[in-house]
Amino acid sequence: MTGDSALRIIATNEAADVGRVMQDLGRRARAAARKVALSPAGQRNAALLAMADALRARTSRILAANAQDLADGKAASLSASFMDRLALDETRLAAIADAVAEVATLPDPLGRVLAEWTRPNGLRFERVATPLGVIAVIFESRPNVTADAGALCLKSGNAAILRAGSDSFRSSTEIAAAMREGLEAAGLPADAIQLVPTRDRAAVGEILSGLNGNIDVVVPRGGKSLVARVQSEARVPVFAHLDGNCHVYVDAKADLAMAREILLNAKLRRTGVCGAAETLLVDEACAATHLVPLVGALLEAGCAVRGDEAARTADARVTAATEEDWATEYLDRIIAVKTVHGINAAIDHIERYGSHHTDAIVTDDAAAAARFLAEVDSAIVIHNASTQFADGGEFGFGAEIGIATGRMHARGPVGVEQLCSFKYRVHGAGQIRP
Amino acid sequence: MTGDSALRIIATNEAADVGRVMQDLGRRARAAARKVALSPAGQRNAALLAMADALRARTSRILAANAQDLADGKAASLSASFMDRLALDETRLAAIADAVAEVATLPDPLGRVLAEWTRPNGLRFERVATPLGVIAVIFESRPNVTADAGALCLKSGNAAILRAGSDSFRSSTEIAAAMREGLEAAGLPADAIQLVPTRDRAAVGEILSGLNGNIDVVVPRGGKSLVARVQSEARVPVFAHLDGNCHVYVDAKADLAMAREILLNAKLRRTGVCGAAETLLVDEACAATHLVPLVGALLEAGCAVRGDEAARTADARVTAATEEDWATEYLDRIIAVKTVHGINAAIDHIERYGSHHTDAIVTDDAAAAARFLAEVDSAIVIHNASTQFADGGEFGFGAEIGIATGRMHARGPVGVEQLCSFKYRVHGAGQIRP
Repeated sequence: MTGDSALRIIATNEAADVGRVMQDLGRRARAAARKVALSPAGQRNAALLAMADALRARTSRILAANAQDLADGKAASLSASFMDRLALDETRLAAIADAVAEVATLPDPLGRVLAEWTRPNGLRFERVATPLGVIAVIFESRPNVTADAGALCLKSGNAAILRAGSDSFRSSTEIAAAMREGLEAAGLPADAIQLVPTRDRAAVGEILSGLNGNIDVVVPRGGKSLVARVQSEARVPVFAHLDGNCHVYVDAKADLAMAREILLNAKLRRTGVCGAAETLLVDEACAATHLVPLVGALLEAGCAVRGDEAARTADARVTAATEEDWATEYLDRIIAVKTVHGINAAIDHIERYGSHHTDAIVTDDAAAAARFLAEVDSAIVIHNASTQFADGGEFGFGAEIGIATGRMHARGPVGVEQLCSFKYRVHGAGQIRP
Repeated sequence: MTGDSALRIIATNEAADVGRVMQDLGRRARAAARKVALSPAGQRNAALLAMADALRARTSRILAANAQDLADGKAASLSASFMDRLALDETRLAAIADAVAEVATLPDPLGRVLAEWTRPNGLRFERVATPLGVIAVIFESRPNVTADAGALCLKSGNAAILRAGSDSFRSSTEIAAAMREGLEAAGLPADAIQLVPTRDRAAVGEILSGLNGNIDVVVPRGGKSLVARVQSEARVPVFAHLDGNCHVYVDAKADLAMAREILLNAKLRRTGVCGAAETLLVDEACAATHLVPLVGALLEAGCAVRGDEAARTADARVTAATEEDWATEYLDRIIAVKTVHGINAAIDHIERYGSHHTDAIVTDDAAAAARFLAEVDSAIVIHNASTQFADGGEFGFGAEIGIATGRMHARGPVGVEQLCSFKYRVHGAGQIRP
């Protein structure tokens, strides 16, 4: 534990008070949200730059806290991949600070006039972007989420309640202290970014209850079990995706060279991201020419292939896919391959097994592309490009707090604009309603 | 009960099966939603016109069912206002049919390109309006909601699950049969509009559970107790407002004649609508000139006035307001009146006691108006016009399914555009992610 007075750390043996502590956190967040919502963009950006400075100035404290987290993680035999996500060093920390400063350079998402019209009676209507309110972010190993999520929430005029994983608790606490220092340096309330000050797991349940109306949306950042729990228990809206079971469909009229490049990138550029392709569908109309080279390219690139009969016939190294494979998000160097009877069958397969995240078609046939983009009910549908473009940065959003597959409010990459609500401003000259 | 084969009516003594029936309804809605989502606008509009025709053709059946509902209501001693909302006649039914046909004339909300941009790598992004999915509407006395809500859901490419109040069950059943006839006449699945086929109250709980993911949003249409229950129990998003405690703030620089006209209209044009004003705030800087005539105008128009000391001093007929009055939505010829120390105090009062629905400022001071519109955190903020413009029709939305005061997805009048979600279409030429 640090002695930083800006944060109230609750020891785990005070667990009985978690409910009270969390309710207090909610009330503070709501009060801070109002102030942040009305602050000018310049002040919010100044706070972001001050946060970046504070993160840099506190490097040694943050790395010392992280070393303690890592030592505990080692003692607890946490997995190598978990330890890697947890680990900070000077380079990673500098990148975190730079990312916070970068958020200051984004256009102000608040006050944008989203629509404007005048009625015959002369009333002028404006639909204007406003903050959502209080956003709770629940995350696991990566302490950088404290900085990333806090920065995006502030930029969009929201208050943030951040719940760190218990294994990254010390690191997150130090990062949160820097973020709060930045807020205060710019004259904004420190409570606009609050880290849940206890490792007690009961705090998650409290957040999912909505803290008596003081949380407007919950964003889970972590593994599938976390997301599943949040989606099933939350009494407030959730921005999340459970799975990224993404497809590349190679249509009858696909250019083979383009299909090969897109497929290898979609599957193998990074296998652990949610936009990585997990299933290749090939139209049987081009299977004779395309299946052997595509499957071969995957295998040669070190990707295991689980396929239907046609795929296994195409290459003896392909193992048999089961029903389960079509629904699996491997997040690994494994792909499922199936031949389908035309675009209808491809769309049906994606609707049946997919996760409404990101799906791509490769084709030179504009009509087929238009149909695929219209009929595949996914947050992101792509023609002739890699599914790995499913990322807020690649969309030009600057940064994202996550990717959502729900249809409510935010869908796809959730950047600062998606963290906004809106209101209607009506301008009159004395109009009364007949 | 009618013998219409298009509807499956469950007698209340089969209550044990409500869960099974509702799950089945959910699955049917989801399947129908997919078909409706992909249907062309022309087909949806043809269905709307066919629905209007079917409503007209079925006039005698619908009115006979309504007569039975009314007879039961009379026997059950339902209130006069409830009976009025329940009652149909040829004129009202013709208006219902006309309103459904009118929805066909609205622009198609689906497929609208909400945003479009191209990235330096040549990828072209489009954000395109899509349906939300399955919308459940729970209502009480007014059987016309069956037609209004069903039409708006279909127009926006959604499937509807409609839960009628038990007192309007027969009328709603007949109206739903007409709506389903219209769907089938246009070649769309009848299950795109389903009425819950039982009066059993357990059906409401099933809807609020989300029917195993087969409901995307719930819209309660009715009294405060219904809305409160839905907001507190629903496991899915809700579009609603609990209160419409709307304010008219008469600023120091208000034109008195304009203030009087707006105030009388906002309070008294119709007292039972959610956009009716419930509290008048007057800046003490203009109280000397404005308070007496404004309070006098209200009293002369037959409105009871409950006021603070200044209001009581202004007119002896004003009774004393209590703390509770500031938070009360009268929906009656009663208003609360308070003098405040400038615009800050007005905004603070509205934030403390208001319901984030609709609030108006009357002033000739552009800076004061801008501050009020920025700082009052309500779905609709109005300068120099009546709060009774809080209505989808007045906004130019054509029709609304309700007014929402939440900040998530829909806020203010919920018309067909707000019943839409969106997806991203990405157009490439072989791009892969570096």
